[in-house]
Amino acid sequence: MSDHGILAVVSGFSGAGKGTLMKELLSRYDNYSLSISATTRQPREGEVHGREYFFVTEEKFLEMIDENKLIEYTRYVNHYYGTPSEYVLNQMKAGRDVILEIEIQGALNIKKRFPDALLLFVVPPSAAELKRRLMGRGTESPEVIEARLRRAVEEAEGVDQYDYLLINDDLDRCVEETHRLIQAQHSRVSNNKEFIRRIQDELNHI
Amino acid sequence: MSDHGILAVVSGFSGAGKGTLMKELLSRYDNYSLSISATTRQPREGEVHGREYFFVTEEKFLEMIDENKLIEYTRYVNHYYGTPSEYVLNQMKAGRDVILEIEIQGALNIKKRFPDALLLFVVPPSAAELKRRLMGRGTESPEVIEARLRRAVEEAEGVDQYDYLLINDDLDRCVEETHRLIQAQHSRVSNNKEFIRRIQDELNHI
Repeated sequence: MSDHGILAVVSGFSGAGKGTLMKELLSRYDNYSLSISATTRQPREGEVHGREYFFVTEEKFLEMIDENKLIEYTRYVNHYYGTPSEYVLNQMKAGRDVILEIEIQGALNIKKRFPDALLLFVVPPSAAELKRRLMGRGTESPEVIEARLRRAVEEAEGVDQYDYLLINDDLDRCVEETHRLIQAQHSRVSNNKEFIRRIQDELNHI
Repeated sequence: MSDHGILAVVSGFSGAGKGTLMKELLSRYDNYSLSISATTRQPREGEVHGREYFFVTEEKFLEMIDENKLIEYTRYVNHYYGTPSEYVLNQMKAGRDVILEIEIQGALNIKKRFPDALLLFVVPPSAAELKRRLMGRGTESPEVIEARLRRAVEEAEGVDQYDYLLINDDLDRCVEETHRLIQAQHSRVSNNKEFIRRIQDELNHI
């Protein structure tokens, strides 16, 4: 087993149930730390600074970029989104598995910088079920639902870049699978280089 | 979930307990098919044709190569070893997860031909424990044990090419981890291309 934490990125269609999945995963297992992104967009109703996002000004965000305080950032529909480095790196160093719930562009930036990061993509069991869930919320206009479905089409284009597909047909099963996939990452050869070097040294001096 | 079987390659040091691990895995779960290699070496005492290996003449082996009946083969210490294609491909097509217990050179050949194959490397918890196990058999001369330890040094050089490291400290735990790692492979994006295409099509026609 490796002695540092795993970096796992979770993306997926709006309406696939990522939020519920993360909430349930964190309530069942205490080895995870959820990274909070920074953004320049306005908080929506019910969103809390430091819970959904760190809501910052554009000036502050650009300062964070300049001071190298983000491990990745991206601009999407006129707003910046980014992942503050300090929390992520400290948690991983402390042996905790860190989860980033971010969009595809951010996910691909993470993979470039951390090739061992695990990229998970959450999908509903079918497109019809996705539409049903988006409508089922009852809070969105047909235009918003339509826009989200269009966005899902775009997002689906990037799935091939991810490592694993999580089909969210049943919350309980999906939570357990997410946990298993992230934990399996501790057994990657690339996460056990120190153990391998030690056994090689021992074999050479036996 | 993908509808075809996973191809998993298991390698590891002589004395790491691969044989026992495979035997226990196959007795606990019925979704696995173990591929039997063909070889031109002589059977050792207790080895049965069609159980440990298919023991064939060099003439027959070269014929299998010419007729493209091996998915990989390698020559090691004057003998040929290879994996017959037909069984492996048929079992995978039938949705069964196929395990090849082969040496590193064969494993790397498999990875070249099947990039989605899962490469697992079994190690004992330490080099000292490996030596203890090799001596504990009580059947081998010091020279043979020494030769195996030398071989382990060589084998350790290739570990970096594998996907996962299985530390065989406890048989029960190691069997379950092997099972989990192979089953996780069904969720690889690359093993779910058909599902992804279908959901993309649906999204485009919703």
